[in-house]
Amino acid sequence: MQFGRHISGQFNVELEAIRTHVLTMGGLVEQQLSFAMQALHKDDADLANKVIRDDHKVNAMEVSIDEACTRIIAKRQPTAKDLRLIMAIIKTITDLERIGDVASKIAQGAIEIPSTKEQKFHVSLEPLCRQAITMLHQVLDAFARMDVDAAAEVHKLDDKLDAEYEAVIRQLMTYMMEDPKNIPNILQVMWSARAIERVGDRCQNICEYIIYFVKGKDVRHLGDQSLDDALK
Amino acid sequence: MQFGRHISGQFNVELEAIRTHVLTMGGLVEQQLSFAMQALHKDDADLANKVIRDDHKVNAMEVSIDEACTRIIAKRQPTAKDLRLIMAIIKTITDLERIGDVASKIAQGAIEIPSTKEQKFHVSLEPLCRQAITMLHQVLDAFARMDVDAAAEVHKLDDKLDAEYEAVIRQLMTYMMEDPKNIPNILQVMWSARAIERVGDRCQNICEYIIYFVKGKDVRHLGDQSLDDALK
Repeated sequence: MQFGRHISGQFNVELEAIRTHVLTMGGLVEQQLSFAMQALHKDDADLANKVIRDDHKVNAMEVSIDEACTRIIAKRQPTAKDLRLIMAIIKTITDLERIGDVASKIAQGAIEIPSTKEQKFHVSLEPLCRQAITMLHQVLDAFARMDVDAAAEVHKLDDKLDAEYEAVIRQLMTYMMEDPKNIPNILQVMWSARAIERVGDRCQNICEYIIYFVKGKDVRHLGDQSLDDALK
Repeated sequence: MQFGRHISGQFNVELEAIRTHVLTMGGLVEQQLSFAMQALHKDDADLANKVIRDDHKVNAMEVSIDEACTRIIAKRQPTAKDLRLIMAIIKTITDLERIGDVASKIAQGAIEIPSTKEQKFHVSLEPLCRQAITMLHQVLDAFARMDVDAAAEVHKLDDKLDAEYEAVIRQLMTYMMEDPKNIPNILQVMWSARAIERVGDRCQNICEYIIYFVKGKDVRHLGDQSLDDALK
């Protein structure tokens, strides 16, 4: 994928390298989230610890991509679409890093909550987590192809995630009322649910950066309808 | 405050204008947070609605500062410290916007939770909220003066906020166990507490951007000790 024809072929190579780096980071974050979910459901403390240990890799990638972006701005003085790409990347990696933090948080929850009897609380997170991972996977796919329509589709998936989140919270609230001594444990699971729900918001942010890059329009803080209008 | 001597005096004027704009945005966010807290404690639905209504002003400022930053990069091709300032601003406004969202969320909570009998739940948020506002105020002050030492001091305040947050959650958990039928309302207050606790994390982020601008060192993802070392 070419981001315009530059006098310097080297510039293209550099832009492409950063883009690849972002996708690698995205892949790692997706894997972290997926491992965290597995750790939660299989009560696998080793896997949970691995997720927590590996979070620094995500952080390091954020810092290194950020540096690469600043370097390319200083050196190549990009304008127009090239500059928008770099801006979109700078913002995307912030959201990816925070999704990485969510994975760590879920892994932490997997370790802290004894699952033998609380398994049903964990289980209730499964569909939510699966939806969040799907959303992340699809937004990374849209990013790889810089596909505005795909980005707009992913953007809409957040409503489904929110609805699932509300259902999970209601269910957990019932468990709390049934057996108040379980409140601290269930609260832990609720924090995890909340964190997963936020993954959807972060994926929406990335969708908006893709649209900003391709269309040159800042569609943040608009509803789905205005977003559709902006893409017409 | 001069950010270096530019051949173009106009460049200085533009940089200064963006910086002023960030401080105005910060002031508005601080006011939103403060109004949200008042609305919560005085059970003032009108004020809460005003906070929710005014959130779009914060959002609009984020978009407009972002545009100004992109424009200045394309037009002035800044390097070194000027570029770091712009990068720091781009990241700072993202965090400010999210703090604005927290204010809205607290205001929403103030409307949704009938306070007549639940007043004690709300009251428990007061010290937490006051601390968060202080932290935001101080980080904006550090930003205005680009004062690294002040930024490092604010960074450390987050531990206090976290401790206060833990205390609030423990207290609210006790209320839940005492009277399980109050669980839904108390949960709402807990979400607000959680959101306020996150304000501290966002203020820490801004501290890190200030240090990045002044020192040219990326101190994200380091502990307080490494942060102190980086400032030596």
